[in-house]
Amino acid sequence: MSKNDKPIVILNYKTYLESSGDKALSLAKDLESAYDETGIPMIASPQAIDITKIKDETSIPVYAQHIDPIKPGGNTGSNLLESFLANGIDGTLLNHSEKRMKLADIESLVTKAKESNLKTCVCSNNVATSEAIATLSPTYVAVEPPELIGTGIPVSKAEPEIITGTVDKVKNINKNVKVLCGAGISTGEDMKAAIELGAEGVLLASGIIKAKNPKEALLDLVSKI
Amino acid sequence: MSKNDKPIVILNYKTYLESSGDKALSLAKDLESAYDETGIPMIASPQAIDITKIKDETSIPVYAQHIDPIKPGGNTGSNLLESFLANGIDGTLLNHSEKRMKLADIESLVTKAKESNLKTCVCSNNVATSEAIATLSPTYVAVEPPELIGTGIPVSKAEPEIITGTVDKVKNINKNVKVLCGAGISTGEDMKAAIELGAEGVLLASGIIKAKNPKEALLDLVSKI
Amino acid sequence: MSKNDKPIVILNYKTYLESSGDKALSLAKDLESAYDETGIPMIASPQAIDITKIKDETSIPVYAQHIDPIKPGGNTGSNLLESFLANGIDGTLLNHSEKRMKLADIESLVTKAKESNLKTCVCSNNVATSEAIATLSPTYVAVEPPELIGTGIPVSKAEPEIITGTVDKVKNINKNVKVLCGAGISTGEDMKAAIELGAEGVLLASGIIKAKNPKEALLDLVSKI
Amino acid sequence: MSKNDKPIVILNYKTYLESSGDKALSLAKDLESAYDETGIPMIASPQAIDITKIKDETSIPVYAQHIDPIKPGGNTGSNLLESFLANGIDGTLLNHSEKRMKLADIESLVTKAKESNLKTCVCSNNVATSEAIATLSPTYVAVEPPELIGTGIPVSKAEPEIITGTVDKVKNINKNVKVLCGAGISTGEDMKAAIELGAEGVLLASGIIKAKNPKEALLDLVSKI
Repeated sequence: MSKNDKPIVILNYKTYLESSGDKALSLAKDLESAYDETGIPMIASPQAIDITKIKDETSIPVYAQHIDPIKPGGNTGSNLLESFLANGIDGTLLNHSEKRMKLADIESLVTKAKESNLKTCVCSNNVATSEAIATLSPTYVAVEPPELIGTGIPVSKAEPEIITGTVDKVKNINKNVKVLCGAGISTGEDMKAAIELGAEGVLLASGIIKAKNPKEALLDLVSKI
Repeated sequence: MSKNDKPIVILNYKTYLESSGDKALSLAKDLESAYDETGIPMIASPQAIDITKIKDETSIPVYAQHIDPIKPGGNTGSNLLESFLANGIDGTLLNHSEKRMKLADIESLVTKAKESNLKTCVCSNNVATSEAIATLSPTYVAVEPPELIGTGIPVSKAEPEIITGTVDKVKNINKNVKVLCGAGISTGEDMKAAIELGAEGVLLASGIIKAKNPKEALLDLVSKI
Repeated sequence: MSKNDKPIVILNYKTYLESSGDKALSLAKDLESAYDETGIPMIASPQAIDITKIKDETSIPVYAQHIDPIKPGGNTGSNLLESFLANGIDGTLLNHSEKRMKLADIESLVTKAKESNLKTCVCSNNVATSEAIATLSPTYVAVEPPELIGTGIPVSKAEPEIITGTVDKVKNINKNVKVLCGAGISTGEDMKAAIELGAEGVLLASGIIKAKNPKEALLDLVSKI
Repeated sequence: MSKNDKPIVILNYKTYLESSGDKALSLAKDLESAYDETGIPMIASPQAIDITKIKDETSIPVYAQHIDPIKPGGNTGSNLLESFLANGIDGTLLNHSEKRMKLADIESLVTKAKESNLKTCVCSNNVATSEAIATLSPTYVAVEPPELIGTGIPVSKAEPEIITGTVDKVKNINKNVKVLCGAGISTGEDMKAAIELGAEGVLLASGIIKAKNPKEALLDLVSKI
């Protein structure tokens, strides 16, 4: 990984109270200031309702947590790609383990996102689904064994072969697709281990969101790379 | 219906391009100005991402289109009641025909909304489900035969017995629950007919959203009551 | 409860290995023989694939575990009411906590089942949803607090007020709707307690299915009433 | 395609009245007798409730229309792989356009089916999803543009490049995965065209099921290959 090709950090806000409303914004400011200090790209992925205030008051990239596989029209209660675009979104998570999607919907949204210059980070649960997703050429595949999500046990330690296997399979299908490591990453050691196994960034959540001092936790996270 | 008890108008923005992004806000301003001119309460129900700008720049009540049956925590891509509250929401639609909910989820959300002083407008598809919903004591039951939604054919004309039947059954269960009329309402005649059949307001969408001049369409809508 | 109005027992087979394939049939024979010995009506609710062999080789009533809200046509992988009818089914569970349904779908299936002379046992999770379901006039409402399902803790002991509250509310809406008690019932004591609280039967599962000797467990279950 | 490698015919019964109950069996006998006369493998894919009678009274292979991504246990109303196995099933459709599945569930079911020696026919909607599915190594990928399903317009005529594109991409990933052609196939001409484009069989439904004489329709279907 060259200097021009820094690992990235995506923070999935999920629906924690610690990452909702005013706290969604203050977390985004922590991400912005961690980026300013380290140069490591930091991306916020808040709930839909919290997106516009972050776009208004910070300059960090913002990803949706999910976009619904719909067209403009009668879809009460759904989240439309075009509305995210109209509000300046930069990308989206897709197929998170807490919002698994049908294969046909992943494909149509990755395609539509590309046409709209949105980045896509498609989550996977193992090597086999990572390979399947790679054929769709998203920006990122984030591999997260569901059994480790929220446990604090880093996949880089518990199941390193899932990361190396995913990197192998994904790059074999399309070397432009980047692999992120999710599930249990929260410290500088975890992130360093993930990068050494071939990951090009991390997708994380509660480890930062629930930290006493999220900004310090972010600085620690990227301190060893 | 006494002067103190004016019928209400809820505008469901759905996911039309004409009601997303900047247009979500301009539509809210039309609602606000129609309220200022007529005194008829007007409520906006935009997509989640468009809520905060409307709360910031207008004084009309804003309802979510849907809230997910979740607790704070790991629910990537979902919409949390507490986050809507933190952003100043006033109420929510639930169980719209385009987002039908499980009975147990309707019940838990109506209960949770009441505890949070949020209004609830629960949609139903016929007299029988209206009666079932009335037992849960939401603020409003909005009856909308799905076959008429988006057709421009007002239920007050096509199936008036659905409105009168709903009013009878709902009031028999709980006379404090108000009945709204949905599906196909767009003109002053439609709304007048709905009120005469016992409805205490209307839930509408494309008839206003797709009008050339939404504010004029709103003024026409309430011109006969 | 008069002699003519005996409590009933519905055995939900769920998808246990102990209640699939050949074991589905042998369990049905246990139900049949427990009925022959006690006169207490016993109903089997097996997986769809196991229904026909039970209809062919026993005379006990058989309920589906779920029916999909569809019409005949292109619905690959769904379970059609008309197909259950064509195979001689007697009734169906609906809205089990493991297969919660949308309110509009419960209503349409209860209505369609009645037109087809099928019994319906609609599950509920608390007093409020039991009351809502009662307005739809199913044959049975089976109240099962989800937190007790599969625990072996009988609702009649842990939360008796859920049974008495359900009986009150349901009978107030429609006195012909019978209330069953689910969740944690497995012994004669449990069933006796449920009946004394006003239940007119029980819906059970693992307590019988996983018993070393299901027939003896059934005889014990009804031994105190 | 060598003589040893005959194209196959899978008949998806869906939930038509014409393919339910007794008619499910008579259709299976038509398939059996068409196989006897032509040597072209014919597979029935009936509703779950109709499977055992076909296994009992014919010798043709039977596929489920769908299997739920569950383990044995508390899954009321679901269809368990182990129960299908206990009843002698030979394979299963997965991810049909009328029952689209989450990617992670397709992967886990294809894997579990292989371990159980069940064949898998995974449906796809276009070239891109066919390629993604091929990485999972199912027995068959059946490509069916959803817009053509049930129209009577054969994909081999309307969009031949979907078949040739799918064959190219699938074989490039794994040459052992066979490509079937779905959507609109009903005549001998359609099937011949599909085979010439590289398909190794067809997945069909209403064209045969709704034919006046299904057996003749089957004989016509395979008459040109």
